[in-house]
Amino acid sequence: MSGTGTAKGTPAGHAASRAIQDFYPDDFAHCYGCGRLNAHGLQIKSRWEGDEVVARFSPRPEHIAIPGFVYGGLIASLVDCHAMGTAAAAVERKAGREIGAGPAPRFVTGSLKVDYLKPTPLGPELEIRARPVEIGERKVIVHATVSAAGVVTARGEVVAVRMPETMRRG
Amino acid sequence: MSGTGTAKGTPAGHAASRAIQDFYPDDFAHCYGCGRLNAHGLQIKSRWEGDEVVARFSPRPEHIAIPGFVYGGLIASLVDCHAMGTAAAAVERKAGREIGAGPAPRFVTGSLKVDYLKPTPLGPELEIRARPVEIGERKVIVHATVSAAGVVTARGEVVAVRMPETMRRG
Repeated sequence: MSGTGTAKGTPAGHAASRAIQDFYPDDFAHCYGCGRLNAHGLQIKSRWEGDEVVARFSPRPEHIAIPGFVYGGLIASLVDCHAMGTAAAAVERKAGREIGAGPAPRFVTGSLKVDYLKPTPLGPELEIRARPVEIGERKVIVHATVSAAGVVTARGEVVAVRMPETMRRG
Repeated sequence: MSGTGTAKGTPAGHAASRAIQDFYPDDFAHCYGCGRLNAHGLQIKSRWEGDEVVARFSPRPEHIAIPGFVYGGLIASLVDCHAMGTAAAAVERKAGREIGAGPAPRFVTGSLKVDYLKPTPLGPELEIRARPVEIGERKVIVHATVSAAGVVTARGEVVAVRMPETMRRG
């Protein structure tokens, strides 16, 4: 995500544009998976590309299940945080706004289901694609895929729910 | 396991006894979630306690969704790796062996489903409990709970499948 022009499938300027997570209020920007303020975290960045939301992520060398393959917990984390961003952006778009036009709604995970279709090789940048399949005020259902070098290796279904008031700081 | 006597709750010497993951062959001990040889990883340790397999884990300060609460990707990772260990131990026990008596079978995740029942507070040590609910040669289904300070905050169902030959190094 250096901001330099990128190749195939990545629109010009995509990497340089602000991501959904960049619009989360500071209080909600500490997530290990996607918080821009979490220095130790994965800092996943998700952006609309047409009707899908896309993130690209390069696993660290230690993110392995066995040598050469990405561990499932990372894939679950990518799907999870990416789906939360997708939910927020989908609710905004449905309301006729792009994300960032107003305070971004914040979702948390109600349930997460990941099917691991085949081993995910360590090496290629992973692409996570998601689309909202049901958009309610309180609940959004998101379908996602994870692919490596153009091959889908995992598929996810995530139920995102509006963050409960009990999680907000007093 | 160690063969020392165990009791309900946290047995004396529990933490000191060898965990299921300690018996994985070196080649399979690099997992970010549970590999004893992954210096950066979570190093989850799972042990039989009666008919359940139990792990305890203290999230790091950065493992948050928002300040004060554990992020869902970590919970998914804990459930995932703990379930793989449970599957290996269950297959061995069903065959009349304790884990470590022979080469430990290695499972990978076929599918992972986590229901987030309520926010998981950061602070208390988390307890992950699992039990095998279906034990086949090739596939094991594991149910798990994650709790904090005695309150179950997440529930998981994991399908573990024998590691495919394609994941073994040549």
